[in-house]
Amino acid sequence: MSERLSGRRIALLIEEGFAAREVLDPIAQLRGEGAEVIVAAPSTRAPYRDKTGAVSLEAGTTAGALRAAALDALILPGGHAPDRLRMRPAVIDLVTDAMAAGLPVGAICHGPQVLITANVLRGRTLTCWPSIAIDVTNAGGLYMDRPFVRDGNLITARKGDDVPAFLEALINAMLGVPAPTRR
Amino acid sequence: MSERLSGRRIALLIEEGFAAREVLDPIAQLRGEGAEVIVAAPSTRAPYRDKTGAVSLEAGTTAGALRAAALDALILPGGHAPDRLRMRPAVIDLVTDAMAAGLPVGAICHGPQVLITANVLRGRTLTCWPSIAIDVTNAGGLYMDRPFVRDGNLITARKGDDVPAFLEALINAMLGVPAPTRR
Repeated sequence: MSERLSGRRIALLIEEGFAAREVLDPIAQLRGEGAEVIVAAPSTRAPYRDKTGAVSLEAGTTAGALRAAALDALILPGGHAPDRLRMRPAVIDLVTDAMAAGLPVGAICHGPQVLITANVLRGRTLTCWPSIAIDVTNAGGLYMDRPFVRDGNLITARKGDDVPAFLEALINAMLGVPAPTRR
Repeated sequence: MSERLSGRRIALLIEEGFAAREVLDPIAQLRGEGAEVIVAAPSTRAPYRDKTGAVSLEAGTTAGALRAAALDALILPGGHAPDRLRMRPAVIDLVTDAMAAGLPVGAICHGPQVLITANVLRGRTLTCWPSIAIDVTNAGGLYMDRPFVRDGNLITARKGDDVPAFLEALINAMLGVPAPTRR
Protein backbone atom coordinates (compact mmCIF):
# COMPACT_ATOMS: atom_id res chain seq x y z
CA MET A 1 0.00 0.00 0.00
CA SER A 2 2.92 2.35 0.60
CA GLU A 3 3.40 3.39 -3.04
CA ARG A 4 -0.22 3.58 -4.14
CA LEU A 5 0.19 7.27 -5.06
CA SER A 6 3.32 6.77 -7.17
CA GLY A 7 3.35 9.25 -10.08
CA ARG A 8 0.57 11.43 -8.61
CA ARG A 9 1.11 15.19 -8.24
CA ILE A 10 -0.67 16.91 -5.37
CA ALA A 11 -0.52 20.66 -4.69
CA LEU A 12 -1.04 22.11 -1.24
CA LEU A 13 -1.61 25.87 -0.82
CA ILE A 14 -0.11 27.79 2.08
CA GLU A 15 0.03 31.39 3.25
CA GLU A 16 1.04 33.20 6.43
CA GLY A 17 -0.68 31.73 9.47
CA PHE A 18 -1.24 28.21 8.12
CA ALA A 19 -2.27 25.41 10.50
CA ALA A 20 0.97 23.41 10.79
CA ARG A 21 -0.58 20.00 11.37
CA GLU A 22 -2.97 20.38 8.43
CA VAL A 23 0.05 21.06 6.20
CA LEU A 24 2.85 18.88 7.59
CA ASP A 25 0.81 15.72 8.19
CA PRO A 26 -0.61 15.58 4.63
CA ILE A 27 2.85 16.30 3.14
CA ALA A 28 4.43 13.48 5.15
CA GLN A 29 1.71 10.92 4.55
CA LEU A 30 1.18 11.64 0.86
CA ARG A 31 4.92 11.58 0.17
CA GLY A 32 5.09 8.33 2.14
CA GLU A 33 2.51 6.90 -0.25
CA GLY A 34 4.71 7.84 -3.22
CA ALA A 35 3.06 11.10 -4.33
CA GLU A 36 4.88 14.23 -5.43
CA VAL A 37 3.61 16.97 -3.08
CA ILE A 38 4.04 20.55 -4.28
CA VAL A 39 3.83 23.32 -1.68
CA ALA A 40 2.49 26.42 -3.44
CA ALA A 41 1.87 29.95 -2.23
CA PRO A 42 1.32 33.43 -3.66
CA SER A 43 5.10 33.97 -3.61
CA THR A 44 8.27 31.87 -3.33
CA ARG A 45 10.41 34.73 -2.04
CA ALA A 46 10.30 34.01 1.69
CA PRO A 47 9.19 31.25 4.05
CA TYR A 48 5.67 31.37 5.46
CA ARG A 49 5.09 30.94 9.17
CA ASP A 50 2.35 28.87 10.75
CA LYS A 51 -0.17 30.50 13.06
CA THR A 52 1.92 29.83 16.18
CA GLY A 53 5.02 31.33 14.56
CA ALA A 54 7.00 28.19 15.44
CA VAL A 55 6.94 26.48 12.04
CA SER A 56 8.31 27.94 8.79
CA LEU A 57 7.82 26.51 5.33
CA GLU A 58 8.99 27.65 1.92
CA ALA A 59 6.81 27.30 -1.13
CA GLY A 60 8.30 25.38 -4.04
CA THR A 61 6.20 27.26 -6.58
CA THR A 62 3.56 29.95 -6.90
CA ALA A 63 -0.15 29.26 -7.18
CA GLY A 64 -0.11 31.16 -10.49
CA ALA A 65 2.44 28.74 -11.97
CA LEU A 66 0.23 25.70 -11.29
CA ARG A 67 -2.28 24.33 -13.78
CA ALA A 68 -5.16 22.20 -12.55
CA ALA A 69 -4.77 19.91 -15.58
CA ALA A 70 -1.26 18.98 -14.42
CA LEU A 71 -2.39 17.99 -10.92
CA ASP A 72 -4.03 14.93 -9.43
CA ALA A 73 -5.36 16.71 -6.33
CA LEU A 74 -5.40 20.11 -4.63
CA ILE A 75 -5.42 20.65 -0.86
CA LEU A 76 -6.45 23.79 1.05
CA PRO A 77 -5.30 23.52 4.67
CA GLY A 78 -6.72 25.79 7.36
CA GLY A 79 -5.57 28.30 9.94
CA HIS A 80 -5.39 31.99 9.06
CA ALA A 81 -3.94 31.20 5.62
CA PRO A 82 -7.27 30.79 3.74
CA ASP A 83 -8.29 34.35 4.73
CA ARG A 84 -5.23 35.52 2.76
CA LEU A 85 -5.35 32.95 -0.04
CA ARG A 86 -8.94 33.86 -0.91
CA MET A 87 -7.83 37.38 -1.85
CA ARG A 88 -5.42 36.07 -4.55
CA PRO A 89 -6.94 35.82 -8.04
CA ALA A 90 -4.36 33.18 -9.08
CA VAL A 91 -5.53 30.99 -6.19
CA ILE A 92 -9.19 31.48 -7.03
CA ASP A 93 -8.50 30.69 -10.71
CA LEU A 94 -6.71 27.48 -9.76
CA VAL A 95 -9.47 26.35 -7.41
CA THR A 96 -12.17 27.23 -9.96
CA ASP A 97 -10.37 25.22 -12.67
CA ALA A 98 -9.78 22.28 -10.33
CA MET A 99 -13.44 22.13 -9.30
CA ALA A 100 -14.63 22.52 -12.91
CA ALA A 101 -12.35 19.63 -13.95
CA GLY A 102 -13.63 17.38 -11.16
CA LEU A 103 -10.15 17.14 -9.66
CA PRO A 104 -10.10 15.82 -6.08
CA VAL A 105 -10.07 18.99 -3.96
CA GLY A 106 -9.57 18.80 -0.21
CA ALA A 107 -10.19 21.60 2.29
CA ILE A 108 -9.70 21.51 6.05
CA CYS A 109 -10.91 23.83 8.84
CA HIS A 110 -11.00 27.39 7.33
CA GLY A 111 -9.90 26.05 3.90
CA PRO A 112 -13.50 26.19 2.58
CA GLN A 113 -13.30 30.02 2.77
CA VAL A 114 -11.33 29.78 -0.49
CA LEU A 115 -14.11 27.61 -1.99
CA ILE A 116 -16.68 30.24 -0.97
CA THR A 117 -14.75 32.96 -2.80
CA ALA A 118 -14.41 30.68 -5.85
CA ASN A 119 -18.20 30.29 -5.72
CA VAL A 120 -18.09 26.51 -6.15
CA LEU A 121 -20.18 25.40 -3.18
CA ARG A 122 -23.73 25.73 -4.48
CA GLY A 123 -25.45 22.39 -3.86
CA ARG A 124 -22.33 20.74 -2.47
CA THR A 125 -22.19 18.95 0.88
CA LEU A 126 -19.25 19.71 3.12
CA THR A 127 -17.88 20.29 6.60
CA CYS A 128 -15.55 22.99 7.99
CA TRP A 129 -14.50 24.78 11.17
CA PRO A 130 -17.81 25.67 12.90
CA SER A 131 -17.21 29.45 12.88
CA ILE A 132 -17.56 29.53 9.08
CA ALA A 133 -20.45 27.06 8.80
CA ILE A 134 -22.86 29.97 8.31
CA ASP A 135 -20.65 31.37 5.53
CA VAL A 136 -20.62 27.97 3.82
CA THR A 137 -24.41 27.77 4.12
CA ASN A 138 -24.89 31.32 2.81
CA ALA A 139 -22.66 30.36 -0.16
CA GLY A 140 -25.13 27.61 -1.07
CA GLY A 141 -23.33 24.69 0.56
CA LEU A 142 -24.95 22.06 2.77
CA TYR A 143 -22.96 22.04 6.01
CA MET A 144 -22.61 18.84 8.01
CA ASP A 145 -20.92 18.61 11.40
CA ARG A 146 -18.91 15.43 10.72
CA PRO A 147 -15.18 14.72 11.06
CA PHE A 148 -14.92 14.61 7.27
CA VAL A 149 -17.30 14.69 4.34
CA ARG A 150 -16.74 13.41 0.84
CA ASP A 151 -19.11 14.73 -1.84
CA GLY A 152 -17.75 13.35 -5.11
CA ASN A 153 -14.44 15.10 -5.81
CA LEU A 154 -14.84 17.46 -2.82
CA ILE A 155 -13.37 16.24 0.47
CA THR A 156 -13.57 18.40 3.58
CA ALA A 157 -12.66 18.07 7.26
CA ARG A 158 -13.23 20.12 10.41
CA LYS A 159 -9.76 20.35 11.95
CA GLY A 160 -6.30 18.85 12.42
CA ASP A 161 -7.61 15.85 14.37
CA ASP A 162 -9.57 14.79 11.29
CA VAL A 163 -6.57 14.74 8.93
CA PRO A 164 -6.07 10.93 8.87
CA ALA A 165 -9.69 10.24 7.85
CA PHE A 166 -9.61 13.21 5.46
CA LEU A 167 -6.49 11.89 3.72
CA GLU A 168 -7.96 8.42 3.37
CA ALA A 169 -11.04 9.91 1.68
CA LEU A 170 -8.88 12.12 -0.56
CA ILE A 171 -6.73 9.15 -1.57
CA ASN A 172 -9.88 7.14 -2.36
CA ALA A 173 -11.08 9.97 -4.59
CA MET A 174 -7.71 10.05 -6.36
CA LEU A 175 -7.77 6.28 -6.88
CA GLY A 176 -11.27 6.43 -8.35
CA VAL A 177 -13.03 4.73 -5.46
CA PRO A 178 -16.63 5.99 -5.61
CA ALA A 179 -17.86 8.15 -2.74
CA PRO A 180 -20.14 6.28 -0.34
CA THR A 181 -23.82 7.09 -0.80
CA ARG A 182 -25.28 9.18 2.02
CA ARG A 183 -28.93 9.16 2.97
CA MET B 1 -15.97 68.87 22.54
CA SER B 2 -13.83 66.71 24.79
CA GLU B 3 -16.65 65.57 27.07
CA ARG B 4 -19.40 65.11 24.50
CA LEU B 5 -19.75 61.40 25.46
CA SER B 6 -20.04 62.01 29.20
CA GLY B 7 -22.38 59.44 30.77
CA ARG B 8 -22.36 57.15 27.73
CA ARG B 9 -21.55 53.44 28.14
CA ILE B 10 -19.84 51.73 25.22
CA ALA B 11 -18.93 48.03 25.15
CA LEU B 12 -16.12 46.67 23.03
CA LEU B 13 -15.79 42.90 22.48
CA ILE B 14 -12.41 41.18 22.39
CA GLU B 15 -11.10 37.65 22.04
CA GLU B 16 -7.72 36.02 21.38
CA GLY B 17 -6.04 37.51 18.32
CA PHE B 18 -7.71 40.93 18.40
CA ALA B 19 -6.35 43.73 16.21
CA ALA B 20 -4.62 45.96 18.79
CA ARG B 21 -5.10 49.27 17.04
CA GLU B 22 -8.81 48.63 16.47
CA VAL B 23 -9.19 48.06 20.21
CA LEU B 24 -6.75 50.46 21.87
CA ASP B 25 -7.45 53.52 19.69
CA PRO B 26 -11.23 53.43 20.23
CA ILE B 27 -10.75 52.88 23.98
CA ALA B 28 -8.40 55.86 24.24
CA GLN B 29 -10.44 58.23 22.10
CA LEU B 30 -13.85 57.33 23.51
CA ARG B 31 -12.60 57.60 27.10
CA GLY B 32 -11.01 60.91 26.12
CA GLU B 33 -14.45 62.09 25.04
CA GLY B 34 -15.86 61.18 28.46
CA ALA B 35 -17.43 57.79 27.70
CA GLU B 36 -17.29 54.76 29.96
CA VAL B 37 -15.72 52.03 27.78
CA ILE B 38 -16.30 48.44 28.89
CA VAL B 39 -13.99 45.76 27.50
CA ALA B 40 -15.97 42.52 27.34
CA ALA B 41 -15.01 38.99 26.31
CA PRO B 42 -16.30 35.44 26.69
CA SER B 43 -14.33 35.15 29.96
CA THR B 44 -12.66 37.45 32.49
CA ARG B 45 -10.30 34.76 33.80
CA ALA B 46 -7.16 35.62 31.80
CA PRO B 47 -5.87 38.40 29.57
CA TYR B 48 -6.39 38.11 25.83
CA ARG B 49 -3.48 38.66 23.45
CA ASP B 50 -3.62 40.59 20.22
CA LYS B 51 -2.75 38.88 16.93
CA THR B 52 0.93 39.80 17.17
CA GLY B 53 1.15 38.43 20.71
CA ALA B 54 2.71 41.74 21.87
CA VAL B 55 -0.37 43.31 23.47
CA SER B 56 -2.42 41.81 26.32
CA LEU B 57 -5.73 43.08 27.57
CA GLU B 58 -8.03 41.90 30.33
CA ALA B 59 -11.78 41.99 29.94
CA GLY B 60 -13.68 43.89 32.61
CA THR B 61 -16.79 41.80 32.15
CA THR B 62 -18.22 38.94 30.12
CA ALA B 63 -20.35 39.38 27.03
CA GLY B 64 -23.05 37.36 28.78
CA ALA B 65 -23.23 39.88 31.65
CA LEU B 66 -23.93 42.78 29.29
CA ARG B 67 -27.42 43.90 28.32
CA ALA B 68 -27.93 45.90 25.13
CA ALA B 69 -30.51 48.08 26.90
CA ALA B 70 -27.83 49.28 29.34
CA LEU B 71 -25.42 50.34 26.56
CA ASP B 72 -25.16 53.35 24.27
CA ALA B 73 -23.01 51.60 21.65
CA LEU B 74 -21.35 48.27 20.89
CA ILE B 75 -18.04 47.87 19.00
CA LEU B 76 -16.73 44.73 17.27
CA PRO B 77 -13.02 45.22 16.45
CA GLY B 78 -11.26 42.96 13.95
CA GLY B 79 -8.29 40.62 13.74
CA HIS B 80 -8.72 36.93 14.47
CA ALA B 81 -11.03 37.69 17.41
CA PRO B 82 -14.33 37.80 15.45
CA ASP B 83 -13.78 34.23 14.22
CA ARG B 84 -13.87 33.20 17.89
CA LEU B 85 -16.52 35.64 19.09
CA ARG B 86 -19.02 34.47 16.46
CA MET B 87 -19.05 31.00 18.03
CA ARG B 88 -20.26 32.36 21.40
CA PRO B 89 -24.04 32.38 21.82
CA ALA B 90 -23.83 35.14 24.49
CA VAL B 91 -22.06 37.36 21.95
CA ILE B 92 -24.58 36.61 19.23
CA ASP B 93 -27.45 37.28 21.64
CA LEU B 94 -25.94 40.64 22.60
CA VAL B 95 -25.37 41.68 18.98
CA THR B 96 -28.86 40.55 17.97
CA ASP B 97 -30.43 42.55 20.81
CA ALA B 98 -28.30 45.61 20.03
CA MET B 99 -29.25 45.57 16.35
CA ALA B 100 -32.95 44.96 17.15
CA ALA B 101 -32.90 47.94 19.53
CA GLY B 102 -31.26 50.21 16.94
CA LEU B 103 -28.25 50.74 19.20
CA PRO B 104 -25.22 52.20 17.39
CA VAL B 105 -23.16 49.11 16.47
CA GLY B 106 -19.67 49.47 15.03
CA ALA B 107 -17.64 46.72 13.33
CA ILE B 108 -14.13 46.98 11.88
CA CYS B 109 -12.20 44.69 9.52
CA HIS B 110 -13.31 41.10 10.33
CA GLY B 111 -15.81 42.38 12.94
CA PRO B 112 -18.74 41.95 10.50
CA GLN B 113 -18.24 38.16 10.72
CA VAL B 114 -20.09 38.40 14.03
CA LEU B 115 -22.91 40.32 12.31
CA ILE B 116 -23.13 37.57 9.67
CA THR B 117 -23.58 34.92 12.36
CA ALA B 118 -26.19 37.09 14.09
CA ASN B 119 -28.01 37.26 10.73
CA VAL B 120 -28.56 41.00 10.91
CA LEU B 121 -27.09 42.11 7.57
CA ARG B 122 -29.96 41.48 5.16
CA GLY B 123 -30.49 44.71 3.25
CA ARG B 124 -27.84 46.62 5.19
CA THR B 125 -25.00 48.55 3.56
CA LEU B 126 -21.53 48.07 5.02
CA THR B 127 -17.82 47.70 4.49
CA CYS B 128 -15.28 45.22 5.90
CA TRP B 129 -11.90 43.63 5.27
CA PRO B 130 -11.98 42.58 1.59
CA SER B 131 -11.47 38.85 2.25
CA ILE B 132 -14.92 38.60 3.85
CA ALA B 133 -16.77 40.87 1.40
CA ILE B 134 -18.21 37.79 -0.33
CA ASP B 135 -19.41 36.43 3.03
CA VAL B 136 -21.09 39.77 3.78
CA THR B 137 -22.74 39.74 0.34
CA ASN B 138 -23.87 36.12 0.72
CA ALA B 139 -25.39 37.10 4.08
CA GLY B 140 -27.59 39.65 2.31
CA GLY B 141 -25.47 42.74 2.95
CA LEU B 142 -24.54 45.34 0.34
CA TYR B 143 -20.74 45.61 0.44
CA MET B 144 -19.03 48.89 -0.37
CA ASP B 145 -15.28 49.37 -0.61
CA ARG B 146 -15.07 52.62 1.36
CA PRO B 147 -12.98 53.59 4.39
CA PHE B 148 -16.13 53.58 6.51
CA VAL B 149 -19.84 53.24 5.91
CA ARG B 150 -22.68 54.41 8.10
CA ASP B 151 -26.08 52.85 7.44
CA GLY B 152 -28.33 54.20 10.20
CA ASN B 153 -27.17 52.64 13.47
CA LEU B 154 -24.63 50.36 11.73
CA ILE B 155 -21.13 51.81 11.30
CA THR B 156 -18.40 49.74 9.65
CA ALA B 157 -14.79 50.27 8.58
CA ARG B 158 -12.20 48.31 6.58
CA LYS B 159 -9.13 48.37 8.83
CA GLY B 160 -7.09 50.10 11.52
CA ASP B 161 -6.27 53.09 9.32
CA ASP B 162 -9.97 53.89 9.12
CA VAL B 163 -10.53 54.05 12.89
CA PRO B 164 -10.58 57.89 13.22
CA ALA B 165 -13.30 58.30 10.56
CA PHE B 166 -15.14 55.25 11.94
CA LEU B 167 -15.18 56.70 15.47
CA GLU B 168 -16.44 60.06 14.23
CA ALA B 169 -19.33 58.30 12.47
CA LEU B 170 -20.06 56.16 15.54
CA ILE B 171 -20.06 59.21 17.79
CA ASN B 172 -22.43 60.99 15.40
CA ALA B 173 -24.77 58.01 15.57
CA MET B 174 -24.63 58.08 19.38
CA LEU B 175 -25.35 61.82 19.45
CA GLY B 176 -28.36 61.38 17.19
CA VAL B 177 -26.84 63.08 14.14
CA PRO B 178 -28.68 61.56 11.15
CA ALA B 179 -26.66 59.45 8.71
CA PRO B 180 -25.86 61.26 5.46
CA THR B 181 -28.02 60.20 2.53
CA ARG B 182 -26.17 58.14 -0.06
CA ARG B 183 -27.14 57.91 -3.68
